[in-house]
Amino acid sequence: MAGDAPYGLIEEAAIAVTPDGILWTGAEADIPAAVAHYPRHDLGGRLVTPALIDCHTHLVHGGNRANEFEMRLMGASYEEVAKAGGGIISTVRATREASEEDLIAAALPRIDTLIAEGVSTVEIKSGYGLDIDTELKMLRAARRLAALRPIEVHTTFLGAHAVPAEFKGRADAYLDEVCIPALKAAHEEELVDAVDGFSEGIAFTPAQIARVFDAAKSLGLPVKLHAEQLSNLGGAAMAASYGALSLDHLEYLDEPGVQAMASAGSVAVILPGAFYAIREKQVPPVGLFRKHNVPMAVATDLNPGSSPMNSLLLAMNMACTLFRMTPEEALAGTTRNAATALGLTDRGVIAPEHRADFAVWNAEHPAELSYRFGFNPLHQRIIGGWIDIPLA
Amino acid sequence: MAGDAPYGLIEEAAIAVTPDGILWTGAEADIPAAVAHYPRHDLGGRLVTPALIDCHTHLVHGGNRANEFEMRLMGASYEEVAKAGGGIISTVRATREASEEDLIAAALPRIDTLIAEGVSTVEIKSGYGLDIDTELKMLRAARRLAALRPIEVHTTFLGAHAVPAEFKGRADAYLDEVCIPALKAAHEEELVDAVDGFSEGIAFTPAQIARVFDAAKSLGLPVKLHAEQLSNLGGAAMAASYGALSLDHLEYLDEPGVQAMASAGSVAVILPGAFYAIREKQVPPVGLFRKHNVPMAVATDLNPGSSPMNSLLLAMNMACTLFRMTPEEALAGTTRNAATALGLTDRGVIAPEHRADFAVWNAEHPAELSYRFGFNPLHQRIIGGWIDIPLA
Ligand SMILES: [Zn+2]
Ligand SMILES: [Zn+2]
Repeated sequence: MAGDAPYGLIEEAAIAVTPDGILWTGAEADIPAAVAHYPRHDLGGRLVTPALIDCHTHLVHGGNRANEFEMRLMGASYEEVAKAGGGIISTVRATREASEEDLIAAALPRIDTLIAEGVSTVEIKSGYGLDIDTELKMLRAARRLAALRPIEVHTTFLGAHAVPAEFKGRADAYLDEVCIPALKAAHEEELVDAVDGFSEGIAFTPAQIARVFDAAKSLGLPVKLHAEQLSNLGGAAMAASYGALSLDHLEYLDEPGVQAMASAGSVAVILPGAFYAIREKQVPPVGLFRKHNVPMAVATDLNPGSSPMNSLLLAMNMACTLFRMTPEEALAGTTRNAATALGLTDRGVIAPEHRADFAVWNAEHPAELSYRFGFNPLHQRIIGGWIDIPLA
Repeated sequence: MAGDAPYGLIEEAAIAVTPDGILWTGAEADIPAAVAHYPRHDLGGRLVTPALIDCHTHLVHGGNRANEFEMRLMGASYEEVAKAGGGIISTVRATREASEEDLIAAALPRIDTLIAEGVSTVEIKSGYGLDIDTELKMLRAARRLAALRPIEVHTTFLGAHAVPAEFKGRADAYLDEVCIPALKAAHEEELVDAVDGFSEGIAFTPAQIARVFDAAKSLGLPVKLHAEQLSNLGGAAMAASYGALSLDHLEYLDEPGVQAMASAGSVAVILPGAFYAIREKQVPPVGLFRKHNVPMAVATDLNPGSSPMNSLLLAMNMACTLFRMTPEEALAGTTRNAATALGLTDRGVIAPEHRADFAVWNAEHPAELSYRFGFNPLHQRIIGGWIDIPLA
């Protein structure tokens, strides 16, 4: 995966690995003398890619919204669903009621499903607490998942996800009294790797998010944003002015917004699961991202409301099928560009001085990873040079 | 799953099973004296449904079409794809070149993926041979899969799937010289449980299919049809006149066609994977099926071209998300109505005198099966009263 061919694909390849990571990669015929004596492990001619990275998830949460999903399909109006306690509020309630142990127990099958697809690194957001204690509880649960499973977890503080019922109509008060104090407390506990927000008519204005970003900046934390998913509020350009790692969703982003991202070096995180599940019609401006060389990542957005999708491979297929991304873009989106979206420079490509984290596939060509759906061709993961979780 | 509540759901239920199948089911509090002494197996309060049935697949086939998928996403025209050897012809070529062993080896991961989702019964079609030897080879491979894995396979002869290159423009000659003789030879070898065709502008006219159905009738075999997927040719009404078990796809079916199906007792097999993958816009007439009490099944259509989807749970989610079926309809579509689509009366419901084939789920409510996607909540299958394949 480091040559000049499409995907950087190298046929008959070899990778030399040390405890520090990748030392060399190239054609087996070109193995340098310095590593020729290394013990060899034959992968049977299988396709090897960087281990996958899911750079946008809400996989720590209480409850599920199957009831709401069913009510809507049986013809209930949004009012009726809300009256029955549906919407994000129901997840906030369930997450507040859950103990840290409950949150971990519920998240484990989700994280195991990602691991089984070759994922080595996952981002997990808070944002269903919307009170200080629960935001911290979610982040602690996320951190502990990394100790329970062979996966690296990057945590994102998303206190500015929604205005909770008790602050209805007082978004600024919520930010001052809950969100920003929670961010500071979480940072104090070293629970925060990045800070996110939701810029939308139903959530916060870009100006309100900017206040959270100022707090992030003062703590030395990088920012990212859910932006222009349902309308164009200019959140992306605002976040780009803070040097955002990524802007996420972006269905309604316009060309000036894309240019602002390009200048800032922000990654566009493409989330087709939410587009599919909420039956959105407006596709993100993939052509403009290509034109302005904005790197595109692809993620699950795994969440109980707008994207109850637990498969990064399916996200890749949907990015191709629904957004006409190419399979090569989809794979870059779950490896190289997903790493960039998390601010990580040590993974996502198979190249010297990168981590020896690989996914080994029962496939002949990387396009197969996006082509089939509802099928997992993983043979095994290799993490830090070690084979783990061989599937039957 | 036999009560009057939605889904026939019974809380705190028990099922009494003998080697002959289900003897009794009801609330645990009502266990009859006659079975009270049976040894008990506690399923931990989990949701139990009938084992799932995938009633429409093409899972035996050679090769894959990832290259064609990628070419199209990189902007190639249909002509360019065809020139590069793409389309159904490429699968026919790969299937002809494959040995029976090759076909089985390629099909096993697909069938294992279905088994892991709680599937107990799968239909498999021929139709990528389009010559006598290869049609028989496909059906033999399908039969042998049932010996290699704990799953029941129902075979369907689909010689009238496409006109092969060597008969281009001579569809009737193909039917006389290849398709009908192949059907007779396959029936002789007891390889055929039902007979299918593809009625479409790019395949066969209803009148041509009727000739194949006449041959099926003379052999005592039931029929079904791929109909009105891309246009309305009246194939469904024609097939209904033969008492078809099912009509499949049906995006362009009109109300008289639905009424013909209702009169014949044919099942409408809903295939959202193909709709999704080919980005069809016309949805099947779900409202008319409801109005005329035509039972709806849901299947994967697993095939390398128009539906490389290997998940029946994902098909259920897509039936809800894309076609607005309810989760209850989706579950009936992969259990009760899928059994009917295969002409089977001994499975698909949890009721006395039915097979003791169950799927046990890590779920609280059956709506969860359709709500999440890219997630498999199966705890275990129970087949013929025996627990198999406990997942870790
Ligand atoms: Zn999100
Ligand atoms: Zn089909």
